[in-house]
Amino acid sequence: MSVESIESEVVVVGAGLAGLSAARELKRLGVDVTVVEARDRVGGRTLNEPIGGGEIVELGGQWVGPGQDHVLALIRELGLETFPTWCEGRNVFERGGKARTYSGTIPKLNPVSLAEVGVALKRLERMAAKVDVEQPWTQTELARWDAETFATWARRNAKTPAARDLLRLAIQAVWAAEPEDVSLLHALFYVRSSGGSLEKMLDAEGGAQDSRVVGGTQLISERMAAELGDAVHLGHPVRSVRWRQMPGDVGEALVEVGPHPVTVEADGLTVSARAAVIALPPAVAGRLDYDPIMPSVRDGLTQRMVQGTVVKCHAIYSEPFWRAEGLSGQATSADGPVSVTFDNSPPSGSPGVLLAFLEGNAARNATDLPAEERQRIVLDCLVRLFGSRAAQPEHFVDKAWAVDEFARGCYGGYLPTGAWLTYGAGLRAPVGPLHWAGAETATVNAGYMDGAISSGIRAATEIAGGVDR
Amino acid sequence: MSVESIESEVVVVGAGLAGLSAARELKRLGVDVTVVEARDRVGGRTLNEPIGGGEIVELGGQWVGPGQDHVLALIRELGLETFPTWCEGRNVFERGGKARTYSGTIPKLNPVSLAEVGVALKRLERMAAKVDVEQPWTQTELARWDAETFATWARRNAKTPAARDLLRLAIQAVWAAEPEDVSLLHALFYVRSSGGSLEKMLDAEGGAQDSRVVGGTQLISERMAAELGDAVHLGHPVRSVRWRQMPGDVGEALVEVGPHPVTVEADGLTVSARAAVIALPPAVAGRLDYDPIMPSVRDGLTQRMVQGTVVKCHAIYSEPFWRAEGLSGQATSADGPVSVTFDNSPPSGSPGVLLAFLEGNAARNATDLPAEERQRIVLDCLVRLFGSRAAQPEHFVDKAWAVDEFARGCYGGYLPTGAWLTYGAGLRAPVGPLHWAGAETATVNAGYMDGAISSGIRAATEIAGGVDR
Repeated sequence: MSVESIESEVVVVGAGLAGLSAARELKRLGVDVTVVEARDRVGGRTLNEPIGGGEIVELGGQWVGPGQDHVLALIRELGLETFPTWCEGRNVFERGGKARTYSGTIPKLNPVSLAEVGVALKRLERMAAKVDVEQPWTQTELARWDAETFATWARRNAKTPAARDLLRLAIQAVWAAEPEDVSLLHALFYVRSSGGSLEKMLDAEGGAQDSRVVGGTQLISERMAAELGDAVHLGHPVRSVRWRQMPGDVGEALVEVGPHPVTVEADGLTVSARAAVIALPPAVAGRLDYDPIMPSVRDGLTQRMVQGTVVKCHAIYSEPFWRAEGLSGQATSADGPVSVTFDNSPPSGSPGVLLAFLEGNAARNATDLPAEERQRIVLDCLVRLFGSRAAQPEHFVDKAWAVDEFARGCYGGYLPTGAWLTYGAGLRAPVGPLHWAGAETATVNAGYMDGAISSGIRAATEIAGGVDR
Repeated sequence: MSVESIESEVVVVGAGLAGLSAARELKRLGVDVTVVEARDRVGGRTLNEPIGGGEIVELGGQWVGPGQDHVLALIRELGLETFPTWCEGRNVFERGGKARTYSGTIPKLNPVSLAEVGVALKRLERMAAKVDVEQPWTQTELARWDAETFATWARRNAKTPAARDLLRLAIQAVWAAEPEDVSLLHALFYVRSSGGSLEKMLDAEGGAQDSRVVGGTQLISERMAAELGDAVHLGHPVRSVRWRQMPGDVGEALVEVGPHPVTVEADGLTVSARAAVIALPPAVAGRLDYDPIMPSVRDGLTQRMVQGTVVKCHAIYSEPFWRAEGLSGQATSADGPVSVTFDNSPPSGSPGVLLAFLEGNAARNATDLPAEERQRIVLDCLVRLFGSRAAQPEHFVDKAWAVDEFARGCYGGYLPTGAWLTYGAGLRAPVGPLHWAGAETATVNAGYMDGAISSGIRAATEIAGGVDR
């Protein structure tokens, strides 16, 4: 394969929201930048899929909400618009083979379970308030919370099976993982980073699922890429990153270097630069071949921060038939395997789109199945939740993110127990001329599109203001 | 770089004990085999380091013990000999700034703590007896044990700080990790796999640290490699593995294939074969670029099975001065950062070698330090444990395995919570023509040299007896 060579002030690896935001900010600051993307498209974990008639569904991240100032500002700047998530009507909750309708965020359970959930959510909020989102790894007083899983905490704090089920659904909905997988401290960090309320993170109206982007969230990346023009190079998976300490950096590897201490080698493209922004999920960034190897605090972090597991499914009908029955299209099932659904129809309401998530174990079980079988188990659930008309969609589109080689899972990375305090410092600290961006590296709205964008701007600022220039 | 191309019946990736054992067994069965190794040496996580006078120290795995039948048989077959670990004399235990001597495995604590440790060890044995080492992922009844860390179990089962310290030291000694890192089920699996007794795993005489190999354990790999001759190719890091389902395999990817459904691409070397044995730690195997991508159960397993963190240090003195004082050279410190020491002198007793381990958090903190600083903190500990003569070794040799790019940590891989039941099935199950070996994939003595050897033989048998031939 012939290899093109480029020299640039800064190279950005990854053309998702983080990488493109970094590149855009660097360009704004007058820095020459080159973006290298593995896929033949921009957008990373956002992805529009056309469904005919000029409409799309989003196979990746899609919602924005209050408090997500970076993404909301960027949407405006790029001339895009939002519209409210469809919320009218009653929601459905299924548990123990029975589906019931309700209003609001928390389904109607028996009063004891409901009280337990309410108390547990309040406790989580109080605990989350103690987490320093900037440097949780310095808070050794929180070691107890990093020594246990969310599951063991939930067992102590919710005794009724229904309350436990609801807490499990909350974990699945936010992390695409199970309570057993997640460090309690990780959950608390994330809640604090997202504004302090797990309930708000689960809410549609007024919460993290408040609004959507007209035309789909991938447009955000596409418009940023259009601004950057031929600085964005698609279809070049990066394999290795050769780097040297810059004069003035602290460390053993201080050597005389030329003007380009970083060389990024991708299939068909080599970019030399003074600094790099690696804007990939940590689990993907950790797979690159760094020469020299990363410090152990960084390599250990990327070994441990695994990706959640989700299959995002869309069943597309001629119309949103559930609306006529007074239903919002939002459902939650403790019976599964679909855990949560939403009415994901376009603003016009045509076609009618039911979005169904397989999350955590349900996604793990479904990802390696043949596509038809995945469709069947999802439609079986939708029939239970919304009746027999759900059985016959005109189209069915899903994406199993765990087997997307450049994502390795969604929604994002999370840490198991024991890792925040010992490896958290490796999440964002630059290594010589290498800077890290991506939703997981954000302090505010970590894991969300908003966090991805602010992380890119932060990485650009580190470089533009730092020793690397 | 010029690339050599080889065709072979089977390609083995990795020339550690597992890969070489696989290749040796395949050769014995009349199969043409090619071994590709990234490093410029064989032995993987075993490594001899010359210290002058024809003597060596082992920077990697070194001990063998009763019940480790595969490694003991191989040592005999290869004409090597073992000698007993030096155990004579009293051991040292340090806690709360006080060092005391004792005999046996378990230090003298107060009677309550001692009783707690005894009961906890018995409980662990009883629980471990319930684990099916062949397929623990099918034992959904053990979900509770996979939902919590060893740390939370230990808090419930040991109330005195001294007992908790001792249990922490045991976890550090076996997994080079902290109780917070490890799933309780993982600990139980491993104990069961190693014979059922955590105490035996910690023992020198009669336990897992019973004996050593004259000349060092790397000789085992070197002698196997000598038998295999020019079938072993050193210095070729494998980057990608292209594979296709074989006719007769089950799966969607069934396509017409030539005689070589596997192509392994290494720096400077490409090997085409009918089947492959990937004999790497899971965390390293997961970094290869598979085309097509691995099923999610395999990729998810390799994302989650992280490597322990150890710095293995040797302080080399003109003589084993501690013996004259009636000390065995074995010490355990709850104060750290050195957790455990041994007399690692050669059979002749000259020079005198103190082996000191930094494990888990202590290793994490030390790995990224300059070498001199690591030496200083280790020698400070040795002085506390063995007196002022320990301050001035003639040599000091250590290896921080976490920053060895082809190991990414030692002693081996372990699973955090939530992973065994959902991803355990991805540990050993072949994927098309790809077979997995390595200490972590063993059912008996998983994680030990013995398990590495049996895993290689098992992978060879899968291929020789299976659809791949």
